[in-house]
Amino acid sequence: MTGIEPQEPHEPHEPKEPHDLTRLSINQETVKQWSLPELAAGCTAAGIGSVGLWRAPVQEYGVERAARLMRDSGLTVTSLCRGGFFTARDPELRARALDDNRAAIDEAAELATGTLVLVSGGLPAADRDIAAARERVADALAELAPYAAERGVRLALEPLHPMYASDRCVISTLGQALDIAERFPAEQVGVVVDTYHLWWDDLAPAHTARAGAGGRIAAFQLADWVTPLPEGVLLGRGQLGDGCIDLRGWHRRVDAAGYRGAVEVEIFNPALWARDGAEVLAEVAERYVRHAL
Amino acid sequence: MTGIEPQEPHEPHEPKEPHDLTRLSINQETVKQWSLPELAAGCTAAGIGSVGLWRAPVQEYGVERAARLMRDSGLTVTSLCRGGFFTARDPELRARALDDNRAAIDEAAELATGTLVLVSGGLPAADRDIAAARERVADALAELAPYAAERGVRLALEPLHPMYASDRCVISTLGQALDIAERFPAEQVGVVVDTYHLWWDDLAPAHTARAGAGGRIAAFQLADWVTPLPEGVLLGRGQLGDGCIDLRGWHRRVDAAGYRGAVEVEIFNPALWARDGAEVLAEVAERYVRHAL
Repeated sequence: MTGIEPQEPHEPHEPKEPHDLTRLSINQETVKQWSLPELAAGCTAAGIGSVGLWRAPVQEYGVERAARLMRDSGLTVTSLCRGGFFTARDPELRARALDDNRAAIDEAAELATGTLVLVSGGLPAADRDIAAARERVADALAELAPYAAERGVRLALEPLHPMYASDRCVISTLGQALDIAERFPAEQVGVVVDTYHLWWDDLAPAHTARAGAGGRIAAFQLADWVTPLPEGVLLGRGQLGDGCIDLRGWHRRVDAAGYRGAVEVEIFNPALWARDGAEVLAEVAERYVRHAL
Repeated sequence: MTGIEPQEPHEPHEPKEPHDLTRLSINQETVKQWSLPELAAGCTAAGIGSVGLWRAPVQEYGVERAARLMRDSGLTVTSLCRGGFFTARDPELRARALDDNRAAIDEAAELATGTLVLVSGGLPAADRDIAAARERVADALAELAPYAAERGVRLALEPLHPMYASDRCVISTLGQALDIAERFPAEQVGVVVDTYHLWWDDLAPAHTARAGAGGRIAAFQLADWVTPLPEGVLLGRGQLGDGCIDLRGWHRRVDAAGYRGAVEVEIFNPALWARDGAEVLAEVAERYVRHAL
């Protein structure tokens, strides 16, 4: 991948060297139209050495088989999405969630990724106590973190945009995620910095520095913010550069905080899924270089 | 306000005495199906003495005529929605926005409301610098606050939910709103506490106390949070009690912060607009007593 010009939104300039894709990781949801073998072949062909995987397609393909495919393709699995959904009050539902998360940890270990992304879960039906729900997330981490650590997996708590606070994730800001993560050793519980979820928050830069200083940035994910949001607000993430997020600024910010890991592009967008996967992948790489490097 | 027992969401009980609706104000968007005369007659019939108005229907009816109607009906106008949209970089657009806001201030004065609600505006096209956009909001307030103060109108900066940060309002939290409002005298610039926008924010309670201590709570608005959000996320507000917000807790919080003003119900919801206005108004009053008093 050469000849892609990095540029400021308003100040394009000529590149001097080929662009480095070594930190770029493709979350498989970005090219959801691809099977796992297609993903492996497509990334290899595009010179991309890392992927983020999701549990459902991995389970469908077979966890061991997926792990072998990634190994044989020379691909690094930068994260597994996702465990979590810890917020049930009902003891039976809660026990089931913990069991499911132990299985997710086992899967992450099998895939040789050190990072299991966790989405906390929303408020149970008729529950109006979001502070208590957040405490149940901390309680679940206390049960799971040692189990994960024994298997070489770090739990990566992901704050989701506040528009998901009731139905998907009661942890809405990086500050909230850190307040919980910091109760545990940094090698056991980290946080995810995802531009889509955090871009609007004036406190997020300071919390990124705090997360970096504590060695807690477990993953860094990119997607752009575009409107209007679709019904349900789940599948409206923008291709890099199509929205209003200063992606390059965020990349520099996590790097300045000491992060040296993968930069994972995770875009849920049916318009991308309707296109040829290789074309989408090439576009993502080009946009990454132009808007985020 | 006597005889209403605080109650949990799951334990409805019978009231023992009539309920005090004196602080209840109906924002006219909640019963958008009604003309201004219908609103005035409907509120009077229901024993509700205050309304929040919007500029467009007031202008359509005639500002002076609307002011007379409210006076003659014995109704207090608790707020006028809305000025703002200050974030343009283009000098001509910016000048036009300031002119429009001066007109809004004049309209508020004519309606004898001391509170003009301001929604900041989003990011201009191709602009990725949200911090700079927030500063332009502060710059606009500096130009408008003295003009408003001379006319007995306080500017009420409203933080909107972060899902509106790019296209409607770059001020997303009460903390951000206060950081700007506090640069001005409290009698000139206050903030709006709206449960729909702030419920998810663990820092909002502390900022509510801060706002109250500084005498800056200019308005308190209620709507409930329900999902799934509709496309565009504008018209998905829930009737009181239908969602996950602890409305009573928020009412107590603003009161504990020293607020003694109106409690304005502002629900944008096409399902309410499709019904008989008087029926909706009665339901709002009943829900207010049951969930927010």
